[in-house]
This record gives sequence, structure tokens and C-alpha cells, in this order.
Amino acid sequence: MTNAERDLDLAAVVDALCRANHGCGRSSAEPLPSPDEVIGMMEALRRVLFPGYFGWSELTPETLCYHLGHTLDQVRRTMQTQVKRGLVFAPPQADGGETDTQRRAGAITDAFVERLPQIQALVASDVQAAYEGDPAANSPDEAIFCYPGVLAVTNYRVAHGLHELGVPLLPRMITEHAHSTTGIDIHPGATIGASFFIDHGTGVVIGETCLIGDRVRIYQGVTLGAKSFPLDADGNPVKGIMRHPIIEDDVIIYSGATILGRVTIGKGSVIGGNVWLTRSVPPDSRMTVQAPRQDAFESGGGI
Amino acid sequence: MTNAERDLDLAAVVDALCRANHGCGRSSAEPLPSPDEVIGMMEALRRVLFPGYFGWSELTPETLCYHLGHTLDQVRRTMQTQVKRGLVFAPPQADGGETDTQRRAGAITDAFVERLPQIQALVASDVQAAYEGDPAANSPDEAIFCYPGVLAVTNYRVAHGLHELGVPLLPRMITEHAHSTTGIDIHPGATIGASFFIDHGTGVVIGETCLIGDRVRIYQGVTLGAKSFPLDADGNPVKGIMRHPIIEDDVIIYSGATILGRVTIGKGSVIGGNVWLTRSVPPDSRMTVQAPRQDAFESGGGI
Amino acid sequence: MTNAERDLDLAAVVDALCRANHGCGRSSAEPLPSPDEVIGMMEALRRVLFPGYFGWSELTPETLCYHLGHTLDQVRRTMQTQVKRGLVFAPPQADGGETDTQRRAGAITDAFVERLPQIQALVASDVQAAYEGDPAANSPDEAIFCYPGVLAVTNYRVAHGLHELGVPLLPRMITEHAHSTTGIDIHPGATIGASFFIDHGTGVVIGETCLIGDRVRIYQGVTLGAKSFPLDADGNPVKGIMRHPIIEDDVIIYSGATILGRVTIGKGSVIGGNVWLTRSVPPDSRMTVQAPRQDAFESGGGI
Amino acid sequence: MTNAERDLDLAAVVDALCRANHGCGRSSAEPLPSPDEVIGMMEALRRVLFPGYFGWSELTPETLCYHLGHTLDQVRRTMQTQVKRGLVFAPPQADGGETDTQRRAGAITDAFVERLPQIQALVASDVQAAYEGDPAANSPDEAIFCYPGVLAVTNYRVAHGLHELGVPLLPRMITEHAHSTTGIDIHPGATIGASFFIDHGTGVVIGETCLIGDRVRIYQGVTLGAKSFPLDADGNPVKGIMRHPIIEDDVIIYSGATILGRVTIGKGSVIGGNVWLTRSVPPDSRMTVQAPRQDAFESGGGI
Amino acid sequence: MTNAERDLDLAAVVDALCRANHGCGRSSAEPLPSPDEVIGMMEALRRVLFPGYFGWSELTPETLCYHLGHTLDQVRRTMQTQVKRGLVFAPPQADGGETDTQRRAGAITDAFVERLPQIQALVASDVQAAYEGDPAANSPDEAIFCYPGVLAVTNYRVAHGLHELGVPLLPRMITEHAHSTTGIDIHPGATIGASFFIDHGTGVVIGETCLIGDRVRIYQGVTLGAKSFPLDADGNPVKGIMRHPIIEDDVIIYSGATILGRVTIGKGSVIGGNVWLTRSVPPDSRMTVQAPRQDAFESGGGI
Amino acid sequence: MTNAERDLDLAAVVDALCRANHGCGRSSAEPLPSPDEVIGMMEALRRVLFPGYFGWSELTPETLCYHLGHTLDQVRRTMQTQVKRGLVFAPPQADGGETDTQRRAGAITDAFVERLPQIQALVASDVQAAYEGDPAANSPDEAIFCYPGVLAVTNYRVAHGLHELGVPLLPRMITEHAHSTTGIDIHPGATIGASFFIDHGTGVVIGETCLIGDRVRIYQGVTLGAKSFPLDADGNPVKGIMRHPIIEDDVIIYSGATILGRVTIGKGSVIGGNVWLTRSVPPDSRMTVQAPRQDAFESGGGI
Repeated sequence: MTNAERDLDLAAVVDALCRANHGCGRSSAEPLPSPDEVIGMMEALRRVLFPGYFGWSELTPETLCYHLGHTLDQVRRTMQTQVKRGLVFAPPQADGGETDTQRRAGAITDAFVERLPQIQALVASDVQAAYEGDPAANSPDEAIFCYPGVLAVTNYRVAHGLHELGVPLLPRMITEHAHSTTGIDIHPGATIGASFFIDHGTGVVIGETCLIGDRVRIYQGVTLGAKSFPLDADGNPVKGIMRHPIIEDDVIIYSGATILGRVTIGKGSVIGGNVWLTRSVPPDSRMTVQAPRQDAFESGGGI
Repeated sequence: MTNAERDLDLAAVVDALCRANHGCGRSSAEPLPSPDEVIGMMEALRRVLFPGYFGWSELTPETLCYHLGHTLDQVRRTMQTQVKRGLVFAPPQADGGETDTQRRAGAITDAFVERLPQIQALVASDVQAAYEGDPAANSPDEAIFCYPGVLAVTNYRVAHGLHELGVPLLPRMITEHAHSTTGIDIHPGATIGASFFIDHGTGVVIGETCLIGDRVRIYQGVTLGAKSFPLDADGNPVKGIMRHPIIEDDVIIYSGATILGRVTIGKGSVIGGNVWLTRSVPPDSRMTVQAPRQDAFESGGGI
Repeated sequence: MTNAERDLDLAAVVDALCRANHGCGRSSAEPLPSPDEVIGMMEALRRVLFPGYFGWSELTPETLCYHLGHTLDQVRRTMQTQVKRGLVFAPPQADGGETDTQRRAGAITDAFVERLPQIQALVASDVQAAYEGDPAANSPDEAIFCYPGVLAVTNYRVAHGLHELGVPLLPRMITEHAHSTTGIDIHPGATIGASFFIDHGTGVVIGETCLIGDRVRIYQGVTLGAKSFPLDADGNPVKGIMRHPIIEDDVIIYSGATILGRVTIGKGSVIGGNVWLTRSVPPDSRMTVQAPRQDAFESGGGI
Repeated sequence: MTNAERDLDLAAVVDALCRANHGCGRSSAEPLPSPDEVIGMMEALRRVLFPGYFGWSELTPETLCYHLGHTLDQVRRTMQTQVKRGLVFAPPQADGGETDTQRRAGAITDAFVERLPQIQALVASDVQAAYEGDPAANSPDEAIFCYPGVLAVTNYRVAHGLHELGVPLLPRMITEHAHSTTGIDIHPGATIGASFFIDHGTGVVIGETCLIGDRVRIYQGVTLGAKSFPLDADGNPVKGIMRHPIIEDDVIIYSGATILGRVTIGKGSVIGGNVWLTRSVPPDSRMTVQAPRQDAFESGGGI
Repeated sequence: MTNAERDLDLAAVVDALCRANHGCGRSSAEPLPSPDEVIGMMEALRRVLFPGYFGWSELTPETLCYHLGHTLDQVRRTMQTQVKRGLVFAPPQADGGETDTQRRAGAITDAFVERLPQIQALVASDVQAAYEGDPAANSPDEAIFCYPGVLAVTNYRVAHGLHELGVPLLPRMITEHAHSTTGIDIHPGATIGASFFIDHGTGVVIGETCLIGDRVRIYQGVTLGAKSFPLDADGNPVKGIMRHPIIEDDVIIYSGATILGRVTIGKGSVIGGNVWLTRSVPPDSRMTVQAPRQDAFESGGGI
Repeated sequence: MTNAERDLDLAAVVDALCRANHGCGRSSAEPLPSPDEVIGMMEALRRVLFPGYFGWSELTPETLCYHLGHTLDQVRRTMQTQVKRGLVFAPPQADGGETDTQRRAGAITDAFVERLPQIQALVASDVQAAYEGDPAANSPDEAIFCYPGVLAVTNYRVAHGLHELGVPLLPRMITEHAHSTTGIDIHPGATIGASFFIDHGTGVVIGETCLIGDRVRIYQGVTLGAKSFPLDADGNPVKGIMRHPIIEDDVIIYSGATILGRVTIGKGSVIGGNVWLTRSVPPDSRMTVQAPRQDAFESGGGI
């Protein structure tokens, strides 16, 4: 590249970009959470929750505790650092100094680690649900290894655990990583019971204030969303309102169905594919689209 | 981190996690297939199937055979190892000892390698279909490089080849990798003819027992699924039943259409966008949604 | 592996694969653009557009210019090389020799770099729109870090900048990378105004000739597609026709809506979820699906 | 590169190189030990022998066992694989089949692992000797971190452990790695007592049949070599003869000294710098070079 | 590996190793300096001191400052962290708390950065001396790229700068890395003037209290060492005594020469190869070995 | 790091460093050879010269040509690029334009590749010499895998091949890499016959104009150097004069011997350890140091 013959004033571009960013708030010297560290920590937790499936092989009962303990200790350090960075985005507390934030991050991390056995029990129930719910599944191993739904729900369960402990930003980074990998978008704030199974999953969206019971099964393209949200006096959306559906135990929702607003889908109901629902239905309902009349060709829909 | 002031009993957590997993079956010393190895093998096969596009550059006719031979020999070794690990999940056979499994894995691998020229011919037809089917495509090179549909179908063709040879788990790992990358979920058991093109593709689901002819074109969000599946006496889904659609030659299915059950879409039919179909249609059918009445605003659908 | 007992004639397979490829056009010695390099360049541009969020931390106003200048200079060299490789796919020009292509690639690169401050202003407006448009967003930082819509639109803005300068192939590689990561498929040829927000996003498709105004908001599963496209005398699709919708300022389109053809959605309109639209609507329209009757259970839709 | 204008017949070169190698013995399908794996295993052992110094940080007494156990289990698997590959070079035994070699490799590996505590005690004595023997050393930590002599002797102690168990090739790979890193060349067959310290070390050579006592200190450039070696009837060197020096306890050998042949340096002796010695000396000897007369300049010695 | 048939009690080995290490001082939770980070920092400084030779290419005067500033800012952060870790080994000071150590590390780092231009001037003089002093050198570029002496002296100059600022451990890590790479062992405490050239260099040792003038040239295998060192009442070496040679300006020392003790080699002297010197010599001395008589063959010296 | 409280003016340091370097010649936009690329190329050549030992395993006669051809084609491209960059340092030629340099680099590369079979024959003779010359060697495999002398001589043979073709800089980079790894410093300009063996090797220096016959064996610490070199009118060393020894066939030189100047060591001679020689000796000479008198202890030589 012979720059002599160029007109580009690189310094002017750099200056313009710098000026624009000075006002944008990240000129703070406080380091942000690192996406790579957070994702690496999630992968380590996956090894802990499914020992022998990811990362290690040839485990024996004798050596399992070494590998678990080793990984868990690493997770703990990484989590404390990243949680501490994330707390920059939390409402300030008491002292708020470096040492105080460090201490809070440590306490949150330890509380999370103590919950891991419960999280493990939940993901084990999810794996079993996947194996039992899909006639194409040949073994629970296949579900653990290959099922995007299992991956996304595992990430959600970890993210939800951190969310409940008041950690900002990190839970969303963890569920977005699953979203990117699977096309399944579960907000870490949602509450989901045991034995949850999402099949295929691409396009599934589960909103922040959803409340989902046990043994629920969902297919690709299902939206559990908000109908609308009220604005405050300044025209900004009011945050924190219960605006997503309640799905009771043993409900099945087939592909492409959309359920909007704080409605309740009663226990044991079945919502058919492509159904559009903005009202509550009682237990054991069977909702299906009555297929609209389909006639002569009109429009292509190609792009 | 000053651990002195902490209450966390890490050893207790490790013990709890270990105990829970002892009963979960992967305390076996048999190594599982490695996702990284399997994906790396698939990427190597992509270089073999599209020489000059991925991984190597500046190929000449004189040196092509060296690069192909080199990569194919590496693929062969990796495949044999991974197939052998996958066979742990296959029904046991005759002898079933270490040596026997090794031998079976070798035979499967060689049979697959011998089919590669046919697979190459199929993917070449898919690329041509992509170029011809999309007015936005400027060259077949662009289709090879940038089209998620081409990537997903190539992975499917390799996975299907292994599936036909009775390899467990690996085919699903290969198609799930494409699913993760493209949002296109094709079961390796599906049967798909030449010149197959999926445009955009996000949300496409093609079920295990689908039978798809030649020159079929599909758009994003199309589901070729099962209507329902019978349960056995124990309430488990019966495996292996023909439960997905048959799509004959020269069919086009536009975005968002859903076709469920063992129905047949006759040769040359066009299925319009968002059509919901649970019955067979004769050749040259034109099915479209008669747009339902659309009135005043009712619900937001935001989340 | 004891090859002695095998029948596989590896040389025959290699020969078959080589023969097949000789006629396929990539036996040219001209190197193709490298996906890894192009993606790496896009990631470097993301660091430039959002300094302090990705890749660097602890920036201060004093050191910002060094990091920006360093990265921008690297981007410039990578871009020149990759653009030059991409120009192989452009219509030939004047001289067309090595030196001429090198010079054209340099001029394009410099023109792009000079536009970066404008692109930065646009992406800043997109981030603000994301924060304001989602009640679940806690800070603009969260939008930058975690929102797939922000990632996809940033990639689009860079790709569109290169597309406007006549660069082949690279723009598509950049938007396809976002498509793979987010499930949002925006053609680099589309024209999109400021403050654009896509929420959740999986399954969104925005076609090549779309024209989108300012402050438009779109949800997951929305298609802005072509109704059909005319074929030329040879039966090939005619390229370059305006065939996708015009979306005017301040329009909101809810999840799953499909808008096809060169129709115009008037300023300030709201298109409800799952609406299927193939005609223009005037400003301030409110289009919603009148939910079809939903009765007794008929079909499952599982797969 | 336009190959058209070249004369190079690449295929002819490849053929010539292939033909030449066919007779060279490594066309066997038996895999060789992997230098990378062996070196990685040695680095893992260094972490085990010096926990907290290399690779891990922030160890606590509670978590130490997890990290040690984890690493040791990995070392064990790697070692078994590499030892098995190395056994190809050992004299054949009994059965000699795949399974038998696997079993022998497992037994050797376990025997080695059981010796690790003794090896650890020896390297701890070496570190203490380094700290005490060098006035420039500020702490044992500095010796562990920075002293090439400590690194080389640690590698030797591991290699010697494997050598004693009859492992071919691997011990030499381990000491040669230290040789490359430090310039200190200790044959794994040498026998060396506790509290051994080599300062600076570049150019030190310690031969295969050396016998070195406790608390010996050696400086850079010291050779403990063979005077000459007898040839057999075919003119090949006779292998396995005791041909290197015996250095008794508490001996110091200063830089550049050369001691050749099966001679004995008596307990507590001090061998001065540059001394050339081919005969035994009694305990407490003080050998020094009487500096030769040094006069007017004669020759440069530059290169 | 079938562990069933083994006797190895891995847990017992782990326990033995853990017990042994509990008393060894590194169970502290204070993290140690990271060799990888320190070496990476040194490599970054090499890029800063020789811009355009390592790591970056195609620098222009316009972009040089961006790359320098970027790298220097990174070096500064890394150095502050590593210096802080190193200060654990320094004598405790005043407050000694976390914040105080952080502050000291910051002050040291900034003081070092301010000295970089002087260090750069010195290494430039060294490069020129290498080019002028070796008839085999074709350009200063070759000296920068390929001469181990230039590499080792550059590392020394950086290490010495940190040593002068009272940083423990890190300087030694930096010179030991050069020692490992080149076989040249320069203690960071030595004082060396401008235009210093070491040719070939393997086996050179320069002790802690050496004082070397300007324009000195040294060849491989030269030792500038201590004659002996006094012990204190406990029999430990007394630290900090001036015990290595003073080499005045313009001295040349040929390969293999050994100079021991606090002697002075007068300005402009030439010390011949293999000379052994333990007394001072006046300016302009010419010391050479009078070759000892060499007769009939006596001893081999093979190993 | 709170920069607020700092005085460091980073910009001033950056400016000072930039100013100093502007005059230093590497502000040219011409890229330099990349050490990483050159070393990687050398490692690829080692795989080509010793197929099955490094990088590949489980080669069969059928697949050997693929791996060799693949690697050789890669080497060829890398070499052409790096040679072209190196030619910047060669005397300018004829045209000297970009295209001309490209062409020269291509011609040199092809000429080198054609010589590879001869180089392979030489390194095979070196391996055999190592196996036969060391009683501690158990197999030629051990020599290939573990002997620093074999590594250094292989690098020399490749470097010498490039040196003979007039390539600047690269040959020295290749031999310096070996020097760094082994402590053996062979100038690429030296001429060395077949079956050359260097044992242990640390500290060996072989000068630019050495002429070494067949079947020569050398031990650690041997210098084949220049006695002195004449200066030109400007006081600079005259380049290109024959100033290093001639070593005829079948000579053995034991450790620490120094031979200086254009002297000839006659065929079949044996030079004993530590001998210092500045004159020619006739064939079959036996030169040894008559050990100087060694008395009471005088000086330590510790450092």
C-alpha cells in the first residue's frame, strides 16, 4: 500500500471517532464483564452439570471429585471477578467501595455455588423430559449432546440462578449466548419448573415475567410475549410489570403458537400449532387453529 | 479472595454433585464422541467437497490431488475414531469386543469415503439450485460462501450418508451444528433428492421420516413435521413410524408454511407462505392462505 | 488402522473428486476472500464503533486515540486485501491488471474509512432505540453487550457501506455472519434509516430492495419479502428489480408479520403480530389479525 | 503465483522424496510418541511438583487436592498413551500384542505415579540447595521461578523415574526439552543424589553412567563425560559400559571444568574452574588450574 | 484404561503430595507473577523499541504513534499488575495494604515508562555496535532480527530498568527468558554502558555486580564471575558484596575467557580466547593464552 | 488504575519514541520477512524430510505422497512470499519492480524445492552418523526425535540451500532458530559434507567460511572461528574473506576445542578436548592438551 498517493486523512477519522465517544460513558476506567470469560465460565459449568459429556472423558468414580472440584474452584474465581464487574450496573449499595463490591461479589458467588446441586437436579429432569418427549431420541446421551433445547434450558437455569441473586448483565449474556447458538431466547427473569422440554426450538421467545410450571413442552417458533406495555409520564416503558403468560403444569404448546399478555394457560392444556392467543384458557383446554380456507395461488412469498 | 471469612463448604458441594452423577451412567470409562473432532471432520469434508473455497487457496490442477488426498486421509482417521466411539450407542453386535468395534468403524468409514463422489455431485446440484433460485445471487461462488441453506444441506448430506451406514449420534451432531449455525434443522434420517434449495432458512424444520424429491425449494420458517405420534403401552412414543410429509419433485414451499403428517404434496405444487396443511394435495396444486380480515388494532405482541 | 485388510482404493476416490472439480471454476490461482479475515475485520470495526465494550478495557480519554488508530490501521490493511480479492467477482474495469485492482481496493477502503464517523452516529442511534424500546433493558450497555438486534444492525451498517462502494461478496459475508449469530437476515443492499431496533430477532428477513425509514421497530419472525419475481426469456429470475416493501418512518411491526412485494407501509403505522400483508397501507394504519376461530383439538404439530 | 511459466515438476520432487522414504522404516502405521504431548505432560508434572507456582494461582489448602488430583489424573492418561507408544522401541516381551502393551504401559504409569512423592521430596531439596548456594538468590520462590538449574534437574528427576521403569525414548525427550530450554544436558540414565544445584548451567553435560552423590554443586560449562569408548567387533561402540565419573557427596565443580572417564572425585572435593581431569582424586581434594603464562596478544578468536 | 485391575491408590498419592506442600508457603492466596504475562510484556516492549521489526509491518510515519501508543498502554497495565504481584517479595513498606501496593506498582510502572526513550537510545547503540563488530553482518536489520546478542542485551536493558526501580523477581524472569533463548545469562543487577555487543553468545555469564563501560565487545563462553564469596556466621553467603569484574570502555573479550573477582580490566584492553584471569590489568593490555604444548593423543573426551 | 493521580505524560513518551524511530529506516512500507512464517516453513520442511516423525502419524506408503505434496505446496507458497520480502535486502537487480521481485522469488523457491531430494539424502546420512557415533543412542528414531545436533544440522542444510541461491536474511533466521533451540550456532554460509554429527552441541560455533568434509564428528563447546579480520580504510571489517578453518574428512574434534583462522585440519585427525589451535595440522594428527599442573586450591570461579 503506497500511502503517498492517498488522500485519506486517517488522523481526522480517528479524531472524529474519539470525540464522538467521549460523551458515551465508557471512558470510565472501570472494566466491563468479559463476554469470553462469562461464556467460558458457562461452558465450565456445563462440564460440572454433565460430567463426562463435555471436556473430560474417561471419568471414573474415583477421579470425578478431582475434576469437579478443580473446575468448580476455577468457576468460582471467574464468577467472582465477573460478578464484581457486573455490579457496576447494579444500584449502588451501602459503602460501595472496591472492597465492599468485592465482598458482595464473593457472597453472591458462594450462594450460587451452593445452589448448584439443585440446578443439577433440574437439568437432569429436563434431559429426561427431552428423551421421553421426542420419538426421534435414541438415548438421554443424544439429548445431552445434540439437543439445542437442553443447551438453552441449561444456560437459562444458570442465568436464572444468578438473576435471582441480583447479578446484573451476566445472566443476559448467558442466555443470549444460548440464543445465538440455538435460536431459543429465554429471558433469565422467567420462572420455569422442572422437566421442561423445547424441541427444535428456533424462534422460541420466552419473556421476562413468564411463569411456567412443571412438565411443560414447547416447540419451535412459540412466543410467550407481552401484549403491550404501559408508558410512564415521559413516554418510556414502565419496567417490572407482570406482562407475560402463566403456563401451568403439563401444558404442551405446538410450533408457531403465540401467547401474549398476562394470561393463564390452565394445567394440562394443549395449544395447537400457529394458534394466536391473548386470553386465558381453563385447565385441559385444546386450542387449535381452524385452518382458514386455502384456494388458488395468489402470492409467492419468496424473497 | 479471603476464604477465611466465607461459609461456603466447597467440599460439600463437590460431594453432592459427585453423588448425584454416580448413577447417571457416564461414569463408564468408555470415551464419548468429541463434538470438536466431529465438527472439525465436517469442516475438513467441506474443504474436500468445495476445494478452493474453504481453508486452501491458490489451488492448481496439479496440486489439487495432494490437498484432497491429505485431507481425506486425515478425515478417514478421525472418522474411524469417532465412529468407533459412537458405536457404543449402537445395538451390540456379534463379538462386540474392542477389536470388533474397531473393525466395524473402519468398514463404515471406508464405505462412507467411497460414497463421497456421489455426495459431491449432489451438493454441486444444490449449489446450482441456489444460484438459479435466488435473484439476489450474483454467482455460484456467493452461494457456496454465504448461503446458509447450502451449508445446512451439505451438512445434512454428509450426516445422511453416515446415518445410512448405521452410525449413531454423529449424524445428529453434524446436523445440529448446521442448525446452530443457520437455524435450519434437518434430521439426518430424512431423504432428500438433488438440487435442493433452502433460502434464508431460519426456523426450517425437516423431520426424520420426510421424503423429498428433486428440485424442491423451501423458504424460511417452513415446518415439515409430524401431526401426532402414537404412544406404546407404557405411554412412550413409538419410534420409527413414517410420520412426516412426502414432498414430490419440483415443489416450492414459501416461508412460514407448515405441513404435518404423512401427507403427500404432489409434483410441481406450490405451497404459499404461512399455509397450514395436514392433508395431501395432488400434483400442480397451488395452496395459499386467503388472508384473514385485518381490522383495527387490537394487540401489540411486543415482549 | 491396519490398511492391509481394507479394500478401499483411496487414490480412486481422490481422483474422482479431483476430476469432478476441475471443471468447477475454482482451479483458478486467484485467492478468494477469507471468511476468517473478513469476520475478524468486522469484529475489529465493532471495537472501533463501541470502544471500551469489546476487546479493550480500562480505556481513558488519553489513550482512546491510540487504540482506535491502531485498530483502524489494521482494519484498513485487512480490508484492502480482502476487497481486492472480492473484486475478482466484480465486473472487469478499465485496465484490470493486478496494480489497477490494488489501486481500486485502496480507494474503496479509504472511502469506507472516511464514512466511519457517520456509521458510528447511526449505530449510536440504534443502541438508543434499543434501550428505549425494550422495557426489559436496564441500560444502553446491556443493549450493546447482549442484544442480537444491535449486533445484526451494526453488521448490516458496515456491510451496507461496503455494498454502496460496489464491493462484491464481502458485504454478504458480513451480514451472513450476523445471520448465523442472531437469526436475523438483512440483505446488505437494503436501505435502513436511523434508530432502527429489532427485538429478539430470530427469523427476521429483510430483502435486498427494502427501503426502511427512521425510528422503525421490528420483532422476531418478521419477513419483509418479495411477492414474486419475473423471469427473463431464459426462465432465470430478472435481477435488480425493486421487489421488497417500503417501510416509512416510525412504523412498528410485531412478531411473525409478513409483508411481501413493493408495497408501502405508511408513516407511523402499526402492523400486528402474524399479519400477512401484500398491499400498501396509508400512514397511521393499525393492522391486526382478527384471531380465527379456535376450537377443539385437531392436530398436534409435533415433529 | 502463475505456475504456467514455471518449469518446476512438483510431482517429480514429491515422488523422489516418497521413494527415498519408503525404505526408512517409518512407513509403519504404529504412531510414535508425540513431543507436544510429552512436553505438556512434563509441564503438568511441574505444576504438581510445585503447586501454586505454575499454571494455577490462588490455591488454598482446601482446594489444593482438587487441582492436584485433576492434573494427576490427566497426566496419568497422557503418560499411559505415550509410554505405550514408546514401548514400540523397547525389546519385545512375552505376548507383545496390543492389549499386552497397553497393560504394560498402565503398570509403568501407575508405578511412576506412586513414586511422585519421593520425586517431590528430591526436587524440594534441590530448590533449597539453589537458594542456599547462590548469594544472588533472594528467595526459594525465585529459584523455582527463574533458575534454569532447577528446571533442568526437575526434568531430569522425572525422566530418570521413567528411565528406571524401562521406558524408552520419553525420558530423553524430557531431558532434551530441558537441554533446549537451559543448555543443561543431563542424560536420564545418570544417578543423582539429593540437594543438587547447577548454577547458570549453559553447556553442562552429564553423561549416561554418572553417579553423583548428595549436596553436589556444579557451575556452567562443566562436562562429566566419557574418556573414550571401546568398539565391538563390527566397529560399533559397545553400549552400556560404565564410562562416566563418580562424584561423591559435597563436591563442588566450578565453571568450565572437564572430568572424563570412570574416575572418582572424593567426598568434599573442590574442582576449580577450567580444570581438566582424567584421574580419580581422594576426598577433600582441591584441584585448580595453575593459570598458564599470559603474554602479548597473539590471536583474536573472533568469528 | 480399566482401572478395576489396578492397585494404584491415586487418592493416597494426591494426599501425600498435598500434605508435603502445605508447609511450603505457596498455600497463600496471593497470586504470583505470571511468567507468560511477563514474557508477553517483554515481547510488546521489543515491538515498541524496534517498531516495524516485530509484530507489526507496513508502518508509516502517520500510523506509528497509534501502534506505539496502543502497545505502550497495554504494557503499562500488564506491568502494573505484574509489578504489584512481584512486590509480595519486596521488603514490606509503610502501609503495605492492597491499595498501597497498587499505588507503588503504579508509580514504578510510570517511572519505567518514562525511561523508555533512554532505553531505546541504548539499544539502538547496541544494534549499531553489532552491525559494525561482525564482518558477517549485512545490515542492522539482520542484527535486530537474528542476533541473539541483541535480543539478550535488550532484555537485560529492560530488566535492569525494573531492577533499578526496586522491582523483585520480574527482572530475573526477563533475563532468564533471554538466557533460555540465547544461552546468554546477564544478571539484571549488572551495570552495562552503551554500544555493547555479544557475538554468538552461548555460555556467556555476566554476574550481578559487574560494571561494564561503553563499546565493550564479548564473545561466546565468556564468564565475568565471582572468585569466591564470604559466608556469614551461619555459613550462608553474604549477599550484596561487590564481587564481579569492572570492565572499562572499549575492551574486547574473546571466546571462552574467564575473569573472576572484583578486578578491573583497563580501558581498551583485549583479553584473548580461553584466558583465565583473576587479577586486574592496566589499560590497553593484551592478554592471551600461550598455547600449552600439544602432543600425542591421550584422551577422547567423548561422552 | 486511577490515572487521575498520575503525572505520567504518556503522549510525551510516545512522541519521543516515535521521533527517535522516524530516522531508523523501518518507516518503509515494505513488509519484512515474518519470523513466525519462516520458522513455520522450516518445521513443515522437517516434516517433509522426516515424514512420520513430526506432525503426521500413521502414514502408509499409499498416503505418503498426499501428505508430502500437500505440505510441499504450502511450503512453496510461504517460501515465495518470504523470499520476496527478504530480497528487499539483496543488491537491487535489473528491473527491480514488484513483478520482477515476485518472479525472482518464484524462481529461487522452485530451484530450492528441486534440491530437496539431495538435502534429504544428506540429512539421512547425518542421522545415521548420529546413531553410529553415540553409544547412548538406541535407534535412529531416537536421534531424529531427541538429538539437538540432528535438529541444528537439518536447519543448517535448509538454510545453506537458500544461502546458495542468494536469499538474504532468511537463512540466518533459520540457523538462529536452531541456535536458540540447541545452543549450536552454524553460519548458513559454511560448507559441510555428508554424515556430519554434533553431540550435545551446546556452545558449538561454526563460522561463515568454514569448509568441512564428510564424516566429521564434533562435540559441545567446539569453536571453528576466525583468528582476526582485517579492517578496510574506514576501519570496518572487510567482508567475504576466507577466515575460518578447513576440516577434512573423518576428523573428530572433542569438547571445548577451539580452532581459529584459515587453517587446515588434515583428514582423519583427532583434536582433543580443550585444545586451542591456530595452525594447520597434517592428516591423522592427534592433538591433545597436556594437562597443565593442577595444585592446591586457589580460586573458586563461582558467580
